[in-house]
Amino acid sequence: MTRKLYSTCLVLTLGASYALTAYPQVKPEVLVKQRQAVMTLQGKYMGPLAGMLKGVVPYDEKVVARNAGYLEVLSKMPWDGFDPSTRDVKSQALPAVFTERGKFKEAQDRLQTAIAQLVAAAKVGSEGPIKTAIGDVGKACGNCHENFREKQ
Amino acid sequence: MTRKLYSTCLVLTLGASYALTAYPQVKPEVLVKQRQAVMTLQGKYMGPLAGMLKGVVPYDEKVVARNAGYLEVLSKMPWDGFDPSTRDVKSQALPAVFTERGKFKEAQDRLQTAIAQLVAAAKVGSEGPIKTAIGDVGKACGNCHENFREKQ
Repeated sequence: MTRKLYSTCLVLTLGASYALTAYPQVKPEVLVKQRQAVMTLQGKYMGPLAGMLKGVVPYDEKVVARNAGYLEVLSKMPWDGFDPSTRDVKSQALPAVFTERGKFKEAQDRLQTAIAQLVAAAKVGSEGPIKTAIGDVGKACGNCHENFREKQ
Repeated sequence: MTRKLYSTCLVLTLGASYALTAYPQVKPEVLVKQRQAVMTLQGKYMGPLAGMLKGVVPYDEKVVARNAGYLEVLSKMPWDGFDPSTRDVKSQALPAVFTERGKFKEAQDRLQTAIAQLVAAAKVGSEGPIKTAIGDVGKACGNCHENFREKQ
């Protein structure tokens, strides 16, 4: 198969609007689905760490280090999904996401800073500071949810 | 707030079954949601690269490098979600996922190898090899979808 024909197939196979358009033209519904996907995965990898902090999941340094690394990358991914075009798409995002951009950006930065500190603590490998750092990440999650997400 | 009280709140806030249980007890529906979230994000970051290969998205070396790095991490995440407990949960996964574990693992490895090659090519920064590597990642996506996902 020639590259041209192959790449046509590849784009058709992927099917996503992303494949055919630059970022600003991605459908709002797709942006919402993508940002929700990030939240789902942040929950997947933060959940066990919160469980370790509470003592209901066995403390495991390797899991902490792996999950912290995953969270570091995941926490870069959701923000472009909160594009103004998504304002009217049904989701749990509060209007403040779109009206208080500065405060929302601060909440994002707080999360990323807390995760960076967790990654650093996981490298040192001492349980006390790691648990403090896990707690700070949890507070950063909660801070953003408190101000920018509908109450569940 | 004491750490104990705080951590209780954190677990309650997160809400996920993950927070209270170790991996094997995560509900099958949650595992499916999590693995689908990874596929959504792999699509988010692979889509533009496929578009560059086809020439419908402007070639951008920085986007390639960033997305390749994201894909490298994301491609580690979905596989534990294909737990046998999820076999009867409605999804596009074909029975072969559960009956041909060796072949499924090979397909996972092929994707991860192709992405590692894309990451390496992106570091060198030469457009030709990068596009070849993007094509190989696309073929690895397609290989797995062809054999392990319902036709769309």
